[in-house]
This record gives sequence, structure tokens and C-alpha cells, in this order.
Amino acid sequence: MSRPEITAEEALARLQHELAHPPFHSVLLPRALSADPVQGRVTILLPYQAHFARAAGSSAVHGGVIATLADMAAHAAVAVQIGRMAPTIDLRIDFLRAAPGADLYARAHTLRVGQSIARVDVEISGEEGPAVAVARGTFSTLAPQPKGAS
Amino acid sequence: MSRPEITAEEALARLQHELAHPPFHSVLLPRALSADPVQGRVTILLPYQAHFARAAGSSAVHGGVIATLADMAAHAAVAVQIGRMAPTIDLRIDFLRAAPGADLYARAHTLRVGQSIARVDVEISGEEGPAVAVARGTFSTLAPQPKGAS
Amino acid sequence: MSRPEITAEEALARLQHELAHPPFHSVLLPRALSADPVQGRVTILLPYQAHFARAAGSSAVHGGVIATLADMAAHAAVAVQIGRMAPTIDLRIDFLRAAPGADLYARAHTLRVGQSIARVDVEISGEEGPAVAVARGTFSTLAPQPKGAS
Amino acid sequence: MSRPEITAEEALARLQHELAHPPFHSVLLPRALSADPVQGRVTILLPYQAHFARAAGSSAVHGGVIATLADMAAHAAVAVQIGRMAPTIDLRIDFLRAAPGADLYARAHTLRVGQSIARVDVEISGEEGPAVAVARGTFSTLAPQPKGAS
Repeated sequence: MSRPEITAEEALARLQHELAHPPFHSVLLPRALSADPVQGRVTILLPYQAHFARAAGSSAVHGGVIATLADMAAHAAVAVQIGRMAPTIDLRIDFLRAAPGADLYARAHTLRVGQSIARVDVEISGEEGPAVAVARGTFSTLAPQPKGAS
Repeated sequence: MSRPEITAEEALARLQHELAHPPFHSVLLPRALSADPVQGRVTILLPYQAHFARAAGSSAVHGGVIATLADMAAHAAVAVQIGRMAPTIDLRIDFLRAAPGADLYARAHTLRVGQSIARVDVEISGEEGPAVAVARGTFSTLAPQPKGAS
Repeated sequence: MSRPEITAEEALARLQHELAHPPFHSVLLPRALSADPVQGRVTILLPYQAHFARAAGSSAVHGGVIATLADMAAHAAVAVQIGRMAPTIDLRIDFLRAAPGADLYARAHTLRVGQSIARVDVEISGEEGPAVAVARGTFSTLAPQPKGAS
Repeated sequence: MSRPEITAEEALARLQHELAHPPFHSVLLPRALSADPVQGRVTILLPYQAHFARAAGSSAVHGGVIATLADMAAHAAVAVQIGRMAPTIDLRIDFLRAAPGADLYARAHTLRVGQSIARVDVEISGEEGPAVAVARGTFSTLAPQPKGAS
């Protein structure tokens, strides 16, 4: 699909906006690291916080934090490419290994962005080492419809 | 598979414990409503909080909250049935409609619980009306292994 | 969404057409058992054939047959409801137990049918006994677009 | 996990065996192109046949053929690595664009192979051009159990 070109600086600003405005993100405090609007790639850093832990007496990160980070990164990869929000239709997350109690990085890239839907892959890992989780989702790219449409 | 029988009271206490101990749950504050250890069914209430919102100026609930609630409920349905934690292997969430800024209910039930894996379905809805999301996941039921196994 | 009403007889005829016309179905030979256009429910029978087996020396049905049956049934549930083809966007299949070398039944129903996408659940089982597989998918319901759109 | 090393020639022979013996594969006639047992990578060619078509009057390939090819390739990637069959637990397929009526290539690689489960990614494309579908699945790697276990 054709879309207006934006610069890398505009894309990073858009990613920062996407990460900053949702109230639930104030619980997670993600940071925008990079955004490539042509390739539909974004990288997000999630600095570790003690309340991310999944079990008493463990520092390993809760699956819900991983899932939220995956959704956030995938959504952002589409949003920087199309210039507006792209609601999640569905999302699959595969947990590959326990996520250590440390900063996490989410790298998302679009597989295809069409006029009605987009597909996105996400890889989540620590600063080093193999991925702790991968995710794949379908997102809506339809332009906002008149009220009453679904 | 055979497993030791537990009473409905023990199952509810186990669900309460599953919901109470993970540090990340202190962000969400879920409540145990019911647990059926024979059928592998649990119901969880997630009272609405303002920081669940997905966008500035909207009260609709963030997809990450929905995903976390789905993971939590599915995991709990297995845990009350087998009597120990059951790590998430993979999870698919389908978002059917925007989740209004209000209390949410998650109803999870096991489709099959085997000696190595379990499958679980979850439905998430408001107090009334159709489901806002459904989820399906695969969970590990393997008894803890000696160190070094994966 | 509003859509023209059709009768149960028209829905069954439509299901029969959906099952009959694709060349790949001539390999599987599915039969239409029932179609409810209001609820978006269809039931399909897949009579067993020896070449469905998944391994030499076993009569258990190949996962690809199960996946094809799931896709076919889910697609048909949408098609009878909207009156045209609904291409598969994505599909998840959970294999719960080995499918015995015998006739299989697929029961599909729509969870939600909107103006751009539909979600569908499918359950596959033998004539008796628990489900051998469940599937869930997202389908496109967009009306055909002018050439060049995606 | 540790596993006995096999040579590339043995891996290719194993892939050829995996593709040749299931009766349902006689409908599809897949061919082994390459197998890397260390990386868990396999490439399969599916030569086009007229009965693969998804609709009367179209040569585009049926989603069930794509799904079967994805399952077959993912399974084979695990099987060449562990030296025995690895039943599919669950599989998600994302259809990115219509698959033209032509030969298809499936490239699968394992993301992680553990002692109880493996995760695998598959990309399906024509001889040239972008992927027509991607798939991701979870497979059982448990050694065969005594009868009665699940």
C-alpha cells in the first residue's frame, strides 16, 4: 500500500508518543530505542522493576509483562508505519524460557501491512542471550469508520 | 491422569493463593470468585482501575491487561487441578471488541490435562454482554525436573 | 452488521456448494450435515479414507487432514452467514489426542462476524467421545475490493 | 539438551523417510531438499498439482494444503534433530497472500528443542517473491512413554 513517507526522526517521535500516552504504560515504563518506518521495525527497552516478578521469591518476569510488552511492540511497529493506532485483532505468544529479572528488549517488525490488516513478529530477549519469548499477531489497519461500523 | 482429590474449599484457597502471591498481581489486584478442581474451572474478577486504560482520554482496557488476565486465569485453572504451578508454553488471545472501562470477569476451563501438557480456554467479559476477548493456551504440567533438564 | 436473511435450506445449499467446488476437497470428500445461518453454525462430516493416515502402519488421521477440515469448517461457518467467501487470515489448531482412523465431525460456529473480520471456533471429534482437536481462526469478511487494494 | 550427532547425509535420509512414509503425503508428494540436524533446519519442495486449488476456476493453492505443508515441515525439523517423531501439540498459520498455482517451498527451523517440547517456525513461499504464509508450532519431544501415559 502507498503511504506518506516519514523520516526516522518522526518515526522515533511517534514511537515515543505511542509508548508514553497509554495510562497502563505508566505501570511498565517502556522506552523507545529505535523506529524504522520503512521496514516497520521498532525496538523497545523495558527496564526491570521488582513488581514485574511472576512468583514470590523469584525475580523472573511475569508472563503478563511479556505479553503486554509483545502487544505494545507489535502495535507500535504498525503504528509508526501507518501513522495511526492499529488495534490488536489477535496475538500468539510463545514463552521459550524463563525471563530473568533484568531489562528486556522487544524487537518488532511487520511481515505485511495491508489496507485492512497487518501481521507482525516480535522477539523478546535480555541484553544478551537467546530470545525468552516470541510473538506474532494480526492488527487492524482500517482507517477509522463512521460510527456504527465494526 | 490420576490426581489426588481436593475439595472445593481447598481449590478456592489454592486459587486465592495463585492470585495473591505473584508480585505483578499487586498491580492488577484480581479476586478469586470460584474454583472447581474436578472440571478445572475458575472464575476471576478484575476490578477496574483507572491505570488499566489503553489510551489517553479513553477508559477502554489495555490489551496487556486482558492478556495478563487471560494468562492468569488459564494458569490458575490448571494449577487448581494439578496442585502446582503450570508454566505457560504458549497463549493466543483474540480481542473481539473494546473492553469497556469497568470490572472484568475471566472464566477459564481446562480442555485436557495430561501428564506433560494442559490446554485451557478462557473467556473474558464485562458483568453483562458478550465476551470482549477469548484466549487459548498450552501449559506445562510436568512435575519439576532435576536441575539441568528443560 | 446487517445482512440479508436466508433460510435454513438456502444455508445448507450454500454449505454444500462451499464443500463441493474447491478442487482440493475432492481429495477429502467432506459432506454437509447442517447449517444455521443465524447462529453461524455448520456441521461437516469427513468420512474416513485410508489415505488420511499419518504414519505407515497406523490408521490415525494426519494432522494436515485435521487442519484442512478445521479451515474448511470455519470458513464455511462465515460463508453461510455472509453469503460469500471469507479468506482465512490466520488459524490456530490444538491437537488434543490422536484422531482414530474413523469418520470425523467438525462443528464450527462464529464468535463474531464484523464488517471486516470474523472469528470462528471449531471442534473436531469422532462419532463419540471427546474432541480430538479444536481450532480458532480469523477470517476476512471485507467485500471484494477494486483491483489493487490489499 | 544433548543428543547423538548425526551427519548431514543421515539427516537428509531421515527427512526423506519422514516425507515418504505417511499415507496422506502420497496425496501431496513433497520432496526433501535439505536438512541441517545441528540447526534444526529443513527445506521441502511441494510440486504443484491441479487438485491443490482452493476454488473452482482458480489455481491458487488451498489453505489446507498450506497448513499441511507447514505442519509437515515443522514436524520434520524437529524429527531430524531428535531422531524420532514429534507429535504436533498446536500450530498457528498466518496466510499473508494468495499462494499462486505453482511449486511451493517450506523452510522450517527450530526455535528451541527441549526434553519435553520444541517450538518451530516455518516460512512458505513460491520460487521467488515474499512469503505466502508463515507458521509457528509447539511439538512434543517426550520420549515414548509406557502405555497408559498421556
